Amino acid sequence: MAAYKDLSKEELLKEKKVLTKKFDQIKAQNLHLDMSRGKPSAAQLDLAMGMMDVLNSTSNLKCKAGVDCRNYGVLDGIPEAQELLADMTEVPANQIIIYGNSSLNIMFDTVARSMTHGVMGSTPWCKLDKVKFLCPVPGYDRHFAITEYFGIEMVNIPMTPDGPDMDMVEEYVNNDESVKGIWCVPKYSNPQGITYSDETVRRFARLKPAAEDFRIYWDNAYGIHHLYEDKQDHLIEILMECKKEGNPDMVYKFCSTSKVSFPGSGVAAIAASPANLEDIRKQMRIQTIGHDKLNQLRHVRFFKDIHGMVSHMKKHAEIMRPKFEAVLNVLDKELGDLEIGSWIRPRGGYFISFDALPGCAKAIVAKAKEAGLVMTEAGATYPYGKDPQDSNIRIAPSYPTPEELAIASEIFVLSVKLVSIDKILESK
Amino acid sequence: MAAYKDLSKEELLKEKKVLTKKFDQIKAQNLHLDMSRGKPSAAQLDLAMGMMDVLNSTSNLKCKAGVDCRNYGVLDGIPEAQELLADMTEVPANQIIIYGNSSLNIMFDTVARSMTHGVMGSTPWCKLDKVKFLCPVPGYDRHFAITEYFGIEMVNIPMTPDGPDMDMVEEYVNNDESVKGIWCVPKYSNPQGITYSDETVRRFARLKPAAEDFRIYWDNAYGIHHLYEDKQDHLIEILMECKKEGNPDMVYKFCSTSKVSFPGSGVAAIAASPANLEDIRKQMRIQTIGHDKLNQLRHVRFFKDIHGMVSHMKKHAEIMRPKFEAVLNVLDKELGDLEIGSWIRPRGGYFISFDALPGCAKAIVAKAKEAGLVMTEAGATYPYGKDPQDSNIRIAPSYPTPEELAIASEIFVLSVKLVSIDKILESK
Repeated sequence: MAAYKDLSKEELLKEKKVLTKKFDQIKAQNLHLDMSRGKPSAAQLDLAMGMMDVLNSTSNLKCKAGVDCRNYGVLDGIPEAQELLADMTEVPANQIIIYGNSSLNIMFDTVARSMTHGVMGSTPWCKLDKVKFLCPVPGYDRHFAITEYFGIEMVNIPMTPDGPDMDMVEEYVNNDESVKGIWCVPKYSNPQGITYSDETVRRFARLKPAAEDFRIYWDNAYGIHHLYEDKQDHLIEILMECKKEGNPDMVYKFCSTSKVSFPGSGVAAIAASPANLEDIRKQMRIQTIGHDKLNQLRHVRFFKDIHGMVSHMKKHAEIMRPKFEAVLNVLDKELGDLEIGSWIRPRGGYFISFDALPGCAKAIVAKAKEAGLVMTEAGATYPYGKDPQDSNIRIAPSYPTPEELAIASEIFVLSVKLVSIDKILESK
Repeated sequence: MAAYKDLSKEELLKEKKVLTKKFDQIKAQNLHLDMSRGKPSAAQLDLAMGMMDVLNSTSNLKCKAGVDCRNYGVLDGIPEAQELLADMTEVPANQIIIYGNSSLNIMFDTVARSMTHGVMGSTPWCKLDKVKFLCPVPGYDRHFAITEYFGIEMVNIPMTPDGPDMDMVEEYVNNDESVKGIWCVPKYSNPQGITYSDETVRRFARLKPAAEDFRIYWDNAYGIHHLYEDKQDHLIEILMECKKEGNPDMVYKFCSTSKVSFPGSGVAAIAASPANLEDIRKQMRIQTIGHDKLNQLRHVRFFKDIHGMVSHMKKHAEIMRPKFEAVLNVLDKELGDLEIGSWIRPRGGYFISFDALPGCAKAIVAKAKEAGLVMTEAGATYPYGKDPQDSNIRIAPSYPTPEELAIASEIFVLSVKLVSIDKILESK
């Protein structure tokens, strides 16, 4: 079929009639489908069920350092968990602190601490008139929610195929002292699946921030979450790169096993320079006596080491890959020639990012909902929920079954087509 | 023996010589003993080892509400965990939110949130010139550390056998708008083991705070931690009492299973009025997707219900009671008539509070350390680590074995005697 924009009004109306009939048939089935969140499926969680057996009442519950993991203490996490997550994060084991089950919680705490206590001795941000964060867009809604919650002004930075627009990043960071941070998902980014290029990472490391308390919030959420064995993105390790450039303290790196073991019961960590970690511990010592060491031990006993973890992620890929391909194939087949949307084929991560015709995203998501398909709210991938183009839609194919995905993709493309036809008709 | 103060200089010097010889003999044994923290012993932790078996790879990991506990979600905690901890806390199950493993972390977050966002719409405390907390003394050092960390001014409120001096509490709370909170351990208080009287609780409930955002921080850490079956303190439930008095929003109640299941891997909770909980959720929704539900489920499957938990605590009491009595018997026997210290026989909790002659606490703790016994640092039971009398010492008998306790108590009383003799000799 030709591109919709090249069709006549009559041809479009005819197409709309056919599509509406199909749409109404599906709608009549009263379906309940969800492609809204990056939530692993039950089949993925089943992969880690062995973790429920590695600790039992006859187990040795002491970590290698001899500490009883049941009792209080050990602020940084048990050494073997530090090693495992350090390997996962590609940093030395003495540059990581293990927390509870949520890396989001670590990021929240990191911003909260900066608000009330500043960063390594800087003025607390709550005492400043203006604090800004750069937000590569489209991006992760929960990141933006944290900075919005603390009243931090968010500045959109467009994503390119190589990562954030680094000209803009340099312009802001190197000249505006009120810019204190930037949210990054550097590998298989949320939602586009873009991995920052070597040059992008190096330009980050070479920043000369106007603010001494500027930090890169490097949320490496999908570091080992590949879809293919033979096609994997590689990301340069940012902590070492910053150190080489004389900026050792400029980055906080976050990770978790939420999408490796169990989303509700994983372990999360922050990696940073020794000076940053000591600054963080000043808060942690007041906040807690220590995080859940038994769960740390459980992870170590199950995965054993980074090789075990990487092998485990291949099983995740086996489940995820067909789902991504199912959605992408429907997009290719149904929308390939219509010029009413574009998307990227990611090599990892949890999302497919779809850019509709400007002004159509909200209507598409609403349309899909009519037929029982819940998508991430349009706008969610932008700060304040405001996509200036009303164009970006995040597709999360992980949770539904393959059968559900087939019908969900069909609903989605029908919604895209119907909304796009209406939009094009407006100008005919 | 007569009271030391009534002995002559010569008699004191003679006594000192005998005691010094004993002390040096023990010192020569090069011991390493620790009565510093309220840390359960391995034997207590062994009581909950069954918890390591209740969930395994063949278990149903869905909670009663049908949610897969392995996956993301459920901000308030799974319903059955809410019920268990609500029963433990004596509140309705819809008035509690379950967190991670640390109630200290909840208290920290509660103060942090008040600093940056105020309380139910009030001015954020970081925007105020002065914020004060009342601190019943002696009290819990980690409470004081939180308020000190946030630059909150702490006001000492003397403890009485019925709880904090309520005349002073009323005077401050009802008249000083900068007083935003009070730290309470209302049952088997840390360190004195005092339970607030009915009248004390009622006077709390009847407060008419000058500040609308004043909150009672009611840390019911030892609510079910009795030492005796036949001698138990009863504490009036504060949330209901406040509600009756028209002050439903005036209290945050904290609890955890740290000293019920495992200190490192328990579950913690906050109970409060619906309006407070909604205020708290506004932060939580940004901070996390949900806490560890598998660990919540593990607790419920192990304890089953509050009866199971209460029965379990009787086993703890069997282990704790002889330890408390061992220390108390040594204190009675060795210091009973000397008028160089006083202490309280608690019916529950984790501590014995010892009041030495004024000006002696630091020296006693230092003396004990010489012989290899680590005590809680003197002063720790007061804000800023400053005991104005240099008198209070917290004894934590839970962690050492009974054999270790026998020798630790001996070191302690020898240290008390030696330091007290020196103090009395100064004025002879």
